[in-house]
Amino acid sequence: MSAPVSPPLIATLLVACPDRKGIVASLAQVLYGHGANILDADQHTDPVAQLFFQRIRFDLSALTTDRVLLEAALREVGERFAMNWRLAYASQVRKIAVLASKLEHCLYDLLVRHRAGELACEIAMVVSNHAEPGPIAAHFGVPFHHLPVTADTRAAQEAQLAALVDGAGVELIVLARYMQILSADLVARYPARIINIHHSFLPAFVGANPYRQAYVRGVKLIGATSHYVTAELDQGPIIDQATIDCSHRDSVDDLVRKGRELEKRVLASAVRWHLEDRILVYAGKTVVFD
Amino acid sequence: MSAPVSPPLIATLLVACPDRKGIVASLAQVLYGHGANILDADQHTDPVAQLFFQRIRFDLSALTTDRVLLEAALREVGERFAMNWRLAYASQVRKIAVLASKLEHCLYDLLVRHRAGELACEIAMVVSNHAEPGPIAAHFGVPFHHLPVTADTRAAQEAQLAALVDGAGVELIVLARYMQILSADLVARYPARIINIHHSFLPAFVGANPYRQAYVRGVKLIGATSHYVTAELDQGPIIDQATIDCSHRDSVDDLVRKGRELEKRVLASAVRWHLEDRILVYAGKTVVFD
Amino acid sequence: MSAPVSPPLIATLLVACPDRKGIVASLAQVLYGHGANILDADQHTDPVAQLFFQRIRFDLSALTTDRVLLEAALREVGERFAMNWRLAYASQVRKIAVLASKLEHCLYDLLVRHRAGELACEIAMVVSNHAEPGPIAAHFGVPFHHLPVTADTRAAQEAQLAALVDGAGVELIVLARYMQILSADLVARYPARIINIHHSFLPAFVGANPYRQAYVRGVKLIGATSHYVTAELDQGPIIDQATIDCSHRDSVDDLVRKGRELEKRVLASAVRWHLEDRILVYAGKTVVFD
Amino acid sequence: MSAPVSPPLIATLLVACPDRKGIVASLAQVLYGHGANILDADQHTDPVAQLFFQRIRFDLSALTTDRVLLEAALREVGERFAMNWRLAYASQVRKIAVLASKLEHCLYDLLVRHRAGELACEIAMVVSNHAEPGPIAAHFGVPFHHLPVTADTRAAQEAQLAALVDGAGVELIVLARYMQILSADLVARYPARIINIHHSFLPAFVGANPYRQAYVRGVKLIGATSHYVTAELDQGPIIDQATIDCSHRDSVDDLVRKGRELEKRVLASAVRWHLEDRILVYAGKTVVFD
Repeated sequence: MSAPVSPPLIATLLVACPDRKGIVASLAQVLYGHGANILDADQHTDPVAQLFFQRIRFDLSALTTDRVLLEAALREVGERFAMNWRLAYASQVRKIAVLASKLEHCLYDLLVRHRAGELACEIAMVVSNHAEPGPIAAHFGVPFHHLPVTADTRAAQEAQLAALVDGAGVELIVLARYMQILSADLVARYPARIINIHHSFLPAFVGANPYRQAYVRGVKLIGATSHYVTAELDQGPIIDQATIDCSHRDSVDDLVRKGRELEKRVLASAVRWHLEDRILVYAGKTVVFD
Repeated sequence: MSAPVSPPLIATLLVACPDRKGIVASLAQVLYGHGANILDADQHTDPVAQLFFQRIRFDLSALTTDRVLLEAALREVGERFAMNWRLAYASQVRKIAVLASKLEHCLYDLLVRHRAGELACEIAMVVSNHAEPGPIAAHFGVPFHHLPVTADTRAAQEAQLAALVDGAGVELIVLARYMQILSADLVARYPARIINIHHSFLPAFVGANPYRQAYVRGVKLIGATSHYVTAELDQGPIIDQATIDCSHRDSVDDLVRKGRELEKRVLASAVRWHLEDRILVYAGKTVVFD
Repeated sequence: MSAPVSPPLIATLLVACPDRKGIVASLAQVLYGHGANILDADQHTDPVAQLFFQRIRFDLSALTTDRVLLEAALREVGERFAMNWRLAYASQVRKIAVLASKLEHCLYDLLVRHRAGELACEIAMVVSNHAEPGPIAAHFGVPFHHLPVTADTRAAQEAQLAALVDGAGVELIVLARYMQILSADLVARYPARIINIHHSFLPAFVGANPYRQAYVRGVKLIGATSHYVTAELDQGPIIDQATIDCSHRDSVDDLVRKGRELEKRVLASAVRWHLEDRILVYAGKTVVFD
Repeated sequence: MSAPVSPPLIATLLVACPDRKGIVASLAQVLYGHGANILDADQHTDPVAQLFFQRIRFDLSALTTDRVLLEAALREVGERFAMNWRLAYASQVRKIAVLASKLEHCLYDLLVRHRAGELACEIAMVVSNHAEPGPIAAHFGVPFHHLPVTADTRAAQEAQLAALVDGAGVELIVLARYMQILSADLVARYPARIINIHHSFLPAFVGANPYRQAYVRGVKLIGATSHYVTAELDQGPIIDQATIDCSHRDSVDDLVRKGRELEKRVLASAVRWHLEDRILVYAGKTVVFD
């Protein structure tokens, strides 16, 4: 059922830097020189921002040197080209925390997908301000933390949350229809490390009750948007979006039902892509290598 | 190629009224009593607004009375239930005017579809403030009117336009990427009789340059929206919407190209549905019977 | 969470009969005459087969007579027009059985949707030839029956299954990626009462391993199909279908992952529509009233 | 309107070869060594077939050597890695021939898109066995050749066609709903150089009247497929596919109308991708670099 998602001897390199001649050749040369075999490589140049982005997935099993030397060589190239780079080994299991509310469809969805081997990570914990997700986490064998919150206790609750997350070595926080707005402080602590699902096709219908807003406006499609959380509400870099047709027949409840479908899908894809090191953030947008 | 789209002995009844028991039975009884055979019937009740809407398409070929008596009977039912109703005979060819600019993809699209028999109407004229659409109209055998316009001559130009439209008995004005904003006066003259295409998934990206706005925001899908024109810009009742995926690879030009696809499709469907009497407008929204 | 899906005083009438004048008027008259208020009505005429189909949803709360008299009147109309008709009261909870294998995504999906109030039924049991679905059923509070099967014991196992299904008053059997082929006898026992999901866009890739077939052929989209089960494998009346883009980058495993998405969606819609009395079967096809 | 689609100093390299370490580094080194700047690079490895594919788009404007030396260096690398490679300069305008019938929607679509600058080519001719496309070609300023055909004259007509195509230096033949089946000889003459549109989601509904086949089977979506033509009917490598929902309401004529939409779209994308050197064919399938 849950076969190992990524074989252990694979690494992924993500690079962003000012565009210049020779970047591709230099990186390819370093990898080739150390015996790494490139499995996939994808690149993008933003001609307006004059930036270069690349994702390289390579096989380490026939490395002729070792990881220390390879990383040193990458560091040298990185300095030469003023690169922002990150290297991830598939053998190093990533940890995520899922924050949930009483709306359980996204929570179930992530847990079932994880169990089917779709998400290359350990779900280190489910956290909620409600008790209800507890039995769900238990069914999937995931630790659960109940952290109730009121307007007055927000700071303390967020401190508890941060302690749990940091204590467990969690890399990514997933807001699975978590209905609390995180403080600017908490958001700043985890840049491009918190993924949220907003139940509209942003930038339409920012804020509360987007399905009701959609109903009132009489749109003929509704959407959902997964994005990294930033200080400004619903303004973070968009990772994935999807829409579905609707009509005059759809009540607000129908829109909610149809929307759940989209929410699950675009949240799961965002989490999967993050875990597969496919996403780079710049200028309030994302590059998502497929 | 262009077979007659609608057989001549068919009529379509569109009804809107306060919801009440007995409406369906009364209308069905009138039609049955006069020998009309119902081909399609679709209805909708808005439980919030407590309104009833119905579209009935029926065959007149075996009418046991005549149209005058049938219409009188419908008028009686209409008064009894405070109905807003409209009866259209397929034998009566509708006329439309297409307003175009130098962006010719929607203009071509409508003309080619008309030629293929998709639009049950006569395209009575193509009108533009540019000369370029002239040869296109000519190729399809449609009269062309070149009505240049400047900020100073808008009122006069719109008067000419209205004269042309009214003189020809045009029922529907289609703005096929016509780049001029119509005056409130002109819009008021043709309520629910002007269809526009806006090149975004409204209500996102209202106003100018929506593809550029989409590019800057970094959305992962773009859209197009056809709607009836009202006094407030891009706020009219939405008829159809569609979206298509995009990515970081798409330049503004790519978005424009992808968007043309959607614009053509949702404008054509809106025009087709209008001509087939499928659309009812209320509360700033549309009911579109499929 | 799981609010009552259907208010109790609503009924749905499904009708199929030879097309003739007066059907709509007669049915509407019967309902009106007994004080029923039509909430939705949808009809379809197949001009080739000369058949008429209708679905009417109506409110019984202000009935001026009673159900017995209403049903007698419907029976009279039904005989007059040679109707095949069926009346379902929302107050009468339907029971379904879900047959599962080790592939658990569709099973989870149905159970989670049911819990969210999307499926108007009681899930009376989960049945499997494997033990694995047991804990899943238990988590959702649904009885589980483990019925192992071999080639030699098929007849006996199916007899047990039928006894369970009939004993519990199950109306609909859902094959949620159940990997056993049912015998012709069992299928014949439940006409238009067994829904299956096939993991391709039928009629392409009938039979085993459709994702591998798709990979080998190099298609650019994959699909899933929900259908009623008939004696001939993968040939039953299609209820819903969906597709998703794929590319040369997708391995068979990627296709399997993408396909799960579709399988869940089209199986759930088929079950929901069946339970809402939206489906009529004729000529090996379905009418699905939306 | 029809701005130059591709700036002149850009080239695209397409490569296919057995997978081996060092390919990426070698090619990148050659380009860098000659002063070429990589704009886009995309690669794919088929782990089953153990083949490597790459598309590199690069800027020649700052070449430090010249094209002759660059090509010689590529040839050397190509030999070393047993590459099948092809280099195309954007400055070299490609020529295509469009073969049409009386069904004109795809023909119009390609001509309008070309005029909008979507297709980086010269449409050297429109050819048909019917006279009707003549005025359409004329409107767009494209030479038209009327080549009538009967069962008896097929060989002669195809010889005329080949003479026209070869005489004009046409690289790609586009069958825009051309209703004639080409002989095996003609097909063999233009391997991976003839693109056809089939009006179903292959491999479903091979052969004649796919929309009628779809109607009879009662599918809930219809599709269209663009593919390279090979000797076996409708079996060539698939380039693009799309589907659209349909329902019991759709007559065969409705399916035909809906299908036109898809046919136009997937034929145009196939032609565009071919002209942008995005397609590689192997094992009866395509790699399409986006």
